[in-house]
Amino acid sequence: MESSKPGNTKLWLLAFFFVSSMVVNVYFYYNNSFSLASPFLRLSWTTKAATEAEIVAAIDCSEHGRAYLDGVPVNGVPMCECHNCYSGPSCSVLASNCTADATTGDAMFLEKYWLHHRINTAVLESGWHRMSYFIGHNFMSDELDKHIRLLHKAVGNAKVDDKFLVFGNGVTQLLNGVIISLSPNVTATPAAPIKKVVAYVPYYPVFKSQTKFFNFRGYEWKGNASDYVNAPNPKDYIELVTSPNNPEGLLRKSIIKGSLAVYDHATYWPHYTPIKYTSDEDIMLFALSKYSGHSGSRFGWAFVRDKAVYDKLTTYMATNSEGVSRETQLRTLKIIKEIVLQINQHKGTVGDFNEYGYTTLRNRWIKLTNLVAQSNRFSLQKLSPEYCNYFKRVRDPSPTYGWLKCEWKQDTDCSAVLQNGNILTQSGVRFEASSRYARLSLIKTQDDFNQLMERLSILVKAKQTSASEEYNYEMDRERSIERPFIYGGDQGSYGSF
Amino acid sequence: MESSKPGNTKLWLLAFFFVSSMVVNVYFYYNNSFSLASPFLRLSWTTKAATEAEIVAAIDCSEHGRAYLDGVPVNGVPMCECHNCYSGPSCSVLASNCTADATTGDAMFLEKYWLHHRINTAVLESGWHRMSYFIGHNFMSDELDKHIRLLHKAVGNAKVDDKFLVFGNGVTQLLNGVIISLSPNVTATPAAPIKKVVAYVPYYPVFKSQTKFFNFRGYEWKGNASDYVNAPNPKDYIELVTSPNNPEGLLRKSIIKGSLAVYDHATYWPHYTPIKYTSDEDIMLFALSKYSGHSGSRFGWAFVRDKAVYDKLTTYMATNSEGVSRETQLRTLKIIKEIVLQINQHKGTVGDFNEYGYTTLRNRWIKLTNLVAQSNRFSLQKLSPEYCNYFKRVRDPSPTYGWLKCEWKQDTDCSAVLQNGNILTQSGVRFEASSRYARLSLIKTQDDFNQLMERLSILVKAKQTSASEEYNYEMDRERSIERPFIYGGDQGSYGSF
Repeated sequence: MESSKPGNTKLWLLAFFFVSSMVVNVYFYYNNSFSLASPFLRLSWTTKAATEAEIVAAIDCSEHGRAYLDGVPVNGVPMCECHNCYSGPSCSVLASNCTADATTGDAMFLEKYWLHHRINTAVLESGWHRMSYFIGHNFMSDELDKHIRLLHKAVGNAKVDDKFLVFGNGVTQLLNGVIISLSPNVTATPAAPIKKVVAYVPYYPVFKSQTKFFNFRGYEWKGNASDYVNAPNPKDYIELVTSPNNPEGLLRKSIIKGSLAVYDHATYWPHYTPIKYTSDEDIMLFALSKYSGHSGSRFGWAFVRDKAVYDKLTTYMATNSEGVSRETQLRTLKIIKEIVLQINQHKGTVGDFNEYGYTTLRNRWIKLTNLVAQSNRFSLQKLSPEYCNYFKRVRDPSPTYGWLKCEWKQDTDCSAVLQNGNILTQSGVRFEASSRYARLSLIKTQDDFNQLMERLSILVKAKQTSASEEYNYEMDRERSIERPFIYGGDQGSYGSF
Repeated sequence: MESSKPGNTKLWLLAFFFVSSMVVNVYFYYNNSFSLASPFLRLSWTTKAATEAEIVAAIDCSEHGRAYLDGVPVNGVPMCECHNCYSGPSCSVLASNCTADATTGDAMFLEKYWLHHRINTAVLESGWHRMSYFIGHNFMSDELDKHIRLLHKAVGNAKVDDKFLVFGNGVTQLLNGVIISLSPNVTATPAAPIKKVVAYVPYYPVFKSQTKFFNFRGYEWKGNASDYVNAPNPKDYIELVTSPNNPEGLLRKSIIKGSLAVYDHATYWPHYTPIKYTSDEDIMLFALSKYSGHSGSRFGWAFVRDKAVYDKLTTYMATNSEGVSRETQLRTLKIIKEIVLQINQHKGTVGDFNEYGYTTLRNRWIKLTNLVAQSNRFSLQKLSPEYCNYFKRVRDPSPTYGWLKCEWKQDTDCSAVLQNGNILTQSGVRFEASSRYARLSLIKTQDDFNQLMERLSILVKAKQTSASEEYNYEMDRERSIERPFIYGGDQGSYGSF
């Protein structure tokens, strides 16, 4: 037989290599396409942007920073933007004894989740994408509207079917919009009584600063809601209710019965609090910043029961900024779709975004409470394990902020005590509470949290001097004179989130 | 010799195929990477997003619509969003005799340019991109700040080196911010006199509607600037100056000498007007919507000379929305970089964005003026060819809007006459001008422009009835009673751009 000849062996060998090579060809061809859609589609005009994104993502910042596509370039490559206390071209240099920053509610603890889910949350758009003013209804994407409602149904934190939905550039923009929408237009005759805007102490400082800044003729800031509990005309009051409350994380309800209540539910999500009921208030505000951690996207939303308020709020959004950036709406859709997908597949277990957020913050809270318990210098708000309708189990506390109290008699200005110990916080005074309190943000990067714990452990272990005594609880009732909230160019003036 | 044997011929042939196949393999390997950066980088986590974008971009909408990533899906694929008068799954069905819409300044005429420049303007970002509140300075990207200044230097329309730059969610948001920043905080004692906000007729309707809507205690709307030319205290006046003016496109200056002038330069770009000088005003506003056509991005910027005004305006931006979406800033950077790149390579010729914009609108203006000249029924604003410092040549007019006047005596409400002829416009009344005028937007899609021309040609060719006469010019001085600007949910209420 011919097959025994040496020439034929070579022939078969070469034929084998040829076929193998063809298989590799076919592999390369298909590998470069997206098999779910069309096996024959190959990338063309998107390759440049995709490659740029991968190059920037691969820049080494030592896990202590990150490089971004629009970072300031050094030698043509965006430089690493380092976490607090880190520096150097790859953020590898740790400054000794630098100041920890626990001021802002910048939910960067969620970044790691999104790094793991980078494939499903990537989005590519080119110059021609949605150039027009017009999208969906009232400048709002119908798909995003739908998926926000799906998210609330999957989480169970709000009843949304019977309400209108309005998008804003963060809750910040919607907040003033809602207050304006509930207030009269005082140029009309006869003028209705102007609204009194109030919040129960301690409250989110932006309520006061923003209301005073915009100084609308139809409303005025009137301070602590507890001063008006028995007001004869409760409908003249717009009561801003943060639930869970900022700073201390307790679930709240309006305290002026019959007032126009606005619920800021920015942290009413399973990361931060047990979901104890499906909220069904007339006006409810939510924010991407605290839920998914995308503070930079400036995306928030309001659920509104009343059609007249909805109409005025959409007019506010049109008049203020003609709605929300359409590219932000696209990205938010991607983020929310991924969260809902993972809830459907992994609810309450590894992979579920809510489980990730909760576990991370629970661990931080355990560490912080254990540290503070080591001496009598500080105390924290009391939070108990509670049943959560989302996880369907009792969950430990995992608050957004620590509401720290200085217990030593001489430590009357707690924020200053902490600053002397190289920790930046927000003073209780900003919340119209006592200066004995300071707010510690627990939701920033792991580096931020580690620095906070290191600096705080030194303060906790410090011995009380002979001159000092245990704190006299009578003093807690004396409110410090409020320090004015200064507007200005420094970062500190924006640190109210 | 062995080479003459048939087996050896097969051997050589197979060897040839094998080598060819290997070459193809190598081609595939390298073709899938970005050679400028690293020939060995292959796409991984970006492939899905890039493929999704290409699939959506390839959806056929017959050049009369477009499909977008966040479009409403039908059978899993985003449906085509059709231009006015078109419908059907691929926008191929043209309704007969439908109504042309020339109301809004939605600069979709620029979309075709961006379709051609889709490679350089594509941007890919994943879930972890810029999650934080903090970017650059005051929530503003340093790279974008730099490239906006480079753009103005390349175009020569504004002197920017000695001024602060503030980003906003469109000029709309900045406009109210600037007015608030120039006005006193009336809760302070002693209160300064509140500011009077004015604009010279005909003016952009949003000036009035927005100022009245936000109803800030430190200002009040006072109407036509021409009523206050000799006011004793010009510093009490904030004069809003649109230049080129909306509606008619003439370059303007403040008419109240010594007033606080705010220049809305949204269309002071070579598409729309000759660049006759480098503007150097104290406050100048610009918008992506009119310049690049990205109205949906909601991006505008203000140049401010005075540090105190800058500080207050950045506080306004922080208090109103904590700045502008970071993904919008990234995309805007991409767009502006591409414009500057093309100016540097092709200034004044094919490829230059400004040349594209100018040529398109010049051609439209020629067609419109030729049509209107065919009868005595309508007239348009008079615009002359003028020297342009950017193109370094005399250029023809190419305005944003036609400011159409109805000349027949019976056509007292020009917008209604046009609406009866199936053309939607904005009535001159909204600009505090006569109802004999109507504004026609000339910057929408080619389909929109074609529909406008078709409907208008019918009106132009119509014969005057025996009852009607030539328009009596005396009537022009009688202002119609102003129709109130109604806020509400319908799209018409947002149609002031």
